[in-house]
Amino acid sequence: MTATSEPAARLALSPEAQDLLFREARTANTFTDEPVTDAQVEAIYDLVKYGPTAFNQSPLRVVLVRTQEGRERLLKHMAEGNRPKTATAPLVAILATDHEFHEEMPRLVPHAPRTGETYFSERAVREQSALLNGALQAAYFIVGVRAAGLAAGPMTGYDAHGLRAEFLDDDHEPLMVVNIGRPGPDAWFPRSPRLPYADVVTTV
Amino acid sequence: MTATSEPAARLALSPEAQDLLFREARTANTFTDEPVTDAQVEAIYDLVKYGPTAFNQSPLRVVLVRTQEGRERLLKHMAEGNRPKTATAPLVAILATDHEFHEEMPRLVPHAPRTGETYFSERAVREQSALLNGALQAAYFIVGVRAAGLAAGPMTGYDAHGLRAEFLDDDHEPLMVVNIGRPGPDAWFPRSPRLPYADVVTTV
Repeated sequence: MTATSEPAARLALSPEAQDLLFREARTANTFTDEPVTDAQVEAIYDLVKYGPTAFNQSPLRVVLVRTQEGRERLLKHMAEGNRPKTATAPLVAILATDHEFHEEMPRLVPHAPRTGETYFSERAVREQSALLNGALQAAYFIVGVRAAGLAAGPMTGYDAHGLRAEFLDDDHEPLMVVNIGRPGPDAWFPRSPRLPYADVVTTV
Repeated sequence: MTATSEPAARLALSPEAQDLLFREARTANTFTDEPVTDAQVEAIYDLVKYGPTAFNQSPLRVVLVRTQEGRERLLKHMAEGNRPKTATAPLVAILATDHEFHEEMPRLVPHAPRTGETYFSERAVREQSALLNGALQAAYFIVGVRAAGLAAGPMTGYDAHGLRAEFLDDDHEPLMVVNIGRPGPDAWFPRSPRLPYADVVTTV
């Protein structure tokens, strides 16, 4: 599949897994109507919950939109261009951060149960930390959806205030909405270019 | 390895790959002195560059700290507790966002070369978007380090202003510093608990 001199062969992860998670995985814009089950989402979470966050703060919270009524409440807050795919995806997940994540830290950091009070007593500090670490967990979640053999369609095009008022509360902030399912016909555009290594990585 | 009724068996990704990337992978605090080569970092980037970002904005930039002089310049900005491991890791990477990422968008979004001007003309919008999408890419990078069979040690305990002035400029913001290498003796503490599914995922 790849010669030993090529980059893919320098990784411990098998070429098949590389393809599944990154090289062949794509952001899907259309989906088949094959359902995505709760058991699949549980399996995804059971894997990606181990991805690292600062102080194990784990601020990501997920709202699965399963009912028709929930889907309609969601659609009205999505940007117009995102509505058709959000309407037809088998499952849609709202990924959000919990700005009161420090309250869970006694059980997340049992060897230092005062970590939340010590480092995260200020709301502004928590919001900034939850954005960074919630985004890390959102990326692990996208990788996990792909690990389940499904396509993810992450979107940030929505009315964040409306979405928050509709599904969350003042202590939670939406990070992204993710369509999940098997890719349908014409599920994606040709892949856009990535920046070359030399334009991204410098050495000192 | 896992019975078919267990969550791991519901994923398309092999149990070995699941272990490599999430279940057995850990944040390392000690390292062997086996070098991490540029070829390995290139292979990591060549894989994880495909992880999705909003409008393919790809705001992550990486500074590899390879020289002894560079390491010393880095150490003085790290929190004291992070210094010993940062001093001894075979390679240290500073992950940062580029707040002028929109300038690269004509080549990142060639089918819509005005995307940068249209959506990202305001610096504050770019900074917020770069934080979210740069963090996604940082997570892909951590997964990529693990895909290379290496351990990552991500840290946010540093003087951000000092680090920025030392290695970056006003258009770049550090996201995290990552120690990279093979885990050494007593590389990690026992794994901290994760939140149960029912406390993270709700359904509407």
